[in-house]
Amino acid sequence: MTTASSQRQRAPRPVDGRPVIVVLGAGFGGLEFCKRFRGDAQVVLIDRQNHHLFQPLLYQVAMAGLSAPDVAAPIRSVLSRYARVRTHMAEVTAVDLEARTVAASDVEIEWDWLVLAPGGVTTYFGRDEWSEHALGLKTLDDALRVRSHILTSYERAENETDDEERRRLMTIVVVGGGPTGVELAGAMAELAHRVFRRDFRRIDPAESRVVLVEAEDRILGAYTPALSDSAKRQLEDLGVEVRLESRVLDVREDGVRIAGPLGVETVETRNVLWGAGVAGHPLLRAVRPAIELDRDGRAIVGDDLSLPGHSRAFVIGDAARSESSGEAVPGVAPAAIQMGRHVAKIIGRECGKDADDAERPAFRYVDKGIMATIGRRRAIAMSGPIRASGLIAWLMWLFVHLMTLVGFRNRVAVFFEWMWQYATYQRGARIIPRPEVRD
Amino acid sequence: MTTASSQRQRAPRPVDGRPVIVVLGAGFGGLEFCKRFRGDAQVVLIDRQNHHLFQPLLYQVAMAGLSAPDVAAPIRSVLSRYARVRTHMAEVTAVDLEARTVAASDVEIEWDWLVLAPGGVTTYFGRDEWSEHALGLKTLDDALRVRSHILTSYERAENETDDEERRRLMTIVVVGGGPTGVELAGAMAELAHRVFRRDFRRIDPAESRVVLVEAEDRILGAYTPALSDSAKRQLEDLGVEVRLESRVLDVREDGVRIAGPLGVETVETRNVLWGAGVAGHPLLRAVRPAIELDRDGRAIVGDDLSLPGHSRAFVIGDAARSESSGEAVPGVAPAAIQMGRHVAKIIGRECGKDADDAERPAFRYVDKGIMATIGRRRAIAMSGPIRASGLIAWLMWLFVHLMTLVGFRNRVAVFFEWMWQYATYQRGARIIPRPEVRD
Repeated sequence: MTTASSQRQRAPRPVDGRPVIVVLGAGFGGLEFCKRFRGDAQVVLIDRQNHHLFQPLLYQVAMAGLSAPDVAAPIRSVLSRYARVRTHMAEVTAVDLEARTVAASDVEIEWDWLVLAPGGVTTYFGRDEWSEHALGLKTLDDALRVRSHILTSYERAENETDDEERRRLMTIVVVGGGPTGVELAGAMAELAHRVFRRDFRRIDPAESRVVLVEAEDRILGAYTPALSDSAKRQLEDLGVEVRLESRVLDVREDGVRIAGPLGVETVETRNVLWGAGVAGHPLLRAVRPAIELDRDGRAIVGDDLSLPGHSRAFVIGDAARSESSGEAVPGVAPAAIQMGRHVAKIIGRECGKDADDAERPAFRYVDKGIMATIGRRRAIAMSGPIRASGLIAWLMWLFVHLMTLVGFRNRVAVFFEWMWQYATYQRGARIIPRPEVRD
Repeated sequence: MTTASSQRQRAPRPVDGRPVIVVLGAGFGGLEFCKRFRGDAQVVLIDRQNHHLFQPLLYQVAMAGLSAPDVAAPIRSVLSRYARVRTHMAEVTAVDLEARTVAASDVEIEWDWLVLAPGGVTTYFGRDEWSEHALGLKTLDDALRVRSHILTSYERAENETDDEERRRLMTIVVVGGGPTGVELAGAMAELAHRVFRRDFRRIDPAESRVVLVEAEDRILGAYTPALSDSAKRQLEDLGVEVRLESRVLDVREDGVRIAGPLGVETVETRNVLWGAGVAGHPLLRAVRPAIELDRDGRAIVGDDLSLPGHSRAFVIGDAARSESSGEAVPGVAPAAIQMGRHVAKIIGRECGKDADDAERPAFRYVDKGIMATIGRRRAIAMSGPIRASGLIAWLMWLFVHLMTLVGFRNRVAVFFEWMWQYATYQRGARIIPRPEVRD
């Protein structure tokens, strides 16, 4: 087993001399790697959070439907029966591919194999100043911030005597017609028109405006045009105004300027949600020597998902730019999971041997289907030749998301919440975590 | 109907000319008032939060057993069918008893009747500098801060190479042997010895120390000496070190100095939880003209719970210092609820009439019993002639707390969580909301 030589001080290696695999990130890809890896090595999983986050349901935390613990599972619990995996809660600040080290908080860890799975971050296409007013949705904190902001806006609207300001507080602009934007817009429309309906005395929440802004000529571009149209109609049934071929020119504290097919328009609002851009995690830029990134800051990897020239360092999940059968692999949870499994197989086979560079299989992404939910009994789905929308797609969505939630407890809790919401039109998590009366 | 004259700018009175009752605080007392009041008046309920908090279960949020939405209910939802109540989320900054106004955020509200129910705050007996290291437990934010702090300490311990520092991180000192302190200490011992057991690789959580410090010669002084002894034994069974007749001399970042019967001792720790002192809410000091407060900052009220000399202003709940049958009414939820009901009756009867000062009944506190939980199948309870401890008391505790939780959804969710924890020794809410790796 080769290890790089270095003069720096290091964390002690395992006394038993087993090779060390460092995994960065406990998302879908990193966690799957830890569960699937079979081999005589010590696995060190590093994440800045103590929990795995089930991102596909994060928008429901933001929209007060689920509580934070419903969509998160403590990493230690999830991995407690995988004895070869050690969990380390720390922020990774540097990755050295030649010295084969990772700097995490105040300790440096040597590795023999590296799996980078840091995921993605919200990006504002170079307009970072927009982040102050346009709230992204990638972490639990993001979701709680969105929830707090929206609920506080309605509380303020209830007591606002100025008509224009009250309308601003009750207008929500969602930027980006991908799955996140569509789910947020649909859930927000239901929250305003259904859930809040009876609870306010002075305002009528049903007068809320929800505006979804998409740059392309249809939403949910990963689906067929017919399904995109169906999704648009389902959103409009909920009262969402869908603006296609519309670009955001500016985001200010009191409104969004949009260039659409009919000209430039300003939507006055105090609530802008950002579901438009995802980029590779900035940690990738801290890797030395520098690795090649694509336009969206994702690491360009080889067929086997390793970094070119560094056969023992892999990138998986949303942070990786990879191709399968000539097409770009999409940034979805099933792809990350399949990548984790693929790399677990490669390292599992090689880590017992002396030599690297055995013949490695290329990663092949198997698309089992995609689905997006829009609201109560509203969704679209496609899987192989199947195209579904409305109730059927929604039931498929419910089933798949319940079954893939990590942790039996979370499955039961979320199932209960959904049944409750379906029966009562209530939302269980309408709690503003921190007082934010005057932001 | 008399209203005070004033030159200040005011919020418009209700157009229908009905009297206005302002209620400050949506705790047990304020909420009960709003539900029970029958009369031709407009009720304005003001709270800085959007939720009612079920404080008796707050320690379970701190100890990762329940999620924040489990123990909180949106005030608007709770009161949605009480049409005469309007909810206002705002911070109250001034109360004027002569002008009969309340200043809340940027609006001033005139009232004809006032119900002050702001509750209590954590107090450090004049040593406010301790608050930095000794975490209190009165609000949801407090609970999430405690949870985050404890979970982070164990994460740090797992990676700590210095033995002394690791022991500090795994030592928890709980100050105060009242219900909050006992519940925290018991739940903490279970968390360390049971829940964390299998999840760490390097540390053995069972080696954690939990130290409970009480100044008197027994814990839970509101109970009989025999029950106090039983509670102490039950805590010790869980591994808690109970220090009686021990005063805290100093709280520092790395330890607590304690003067006990055997001399002065320093317990080295990074985790100090404060369950010792509760004082009346500081809002009481903003009342003009100044009202008389007791040593603990609670407003001294008359037999009918009104403020002396201000027959239309009442104080209820933990903020009130009142007597019933010659004894001080304890600061517990049932007392606050009974007070809310009492004042609702008085105002309901008087607000239709022209004159104040009708013959008013004195408030009589009916003690239906008290109970404190220590851990799994461990509790004490007393009600009338009944004295119970252990399993029976624990089942009583479970039943009473489930039944009094506000909101059917919360009852079912909490019931499910408890069943789950009982069966698995897991905690559903082991989520660190914000990364706090290096505080």
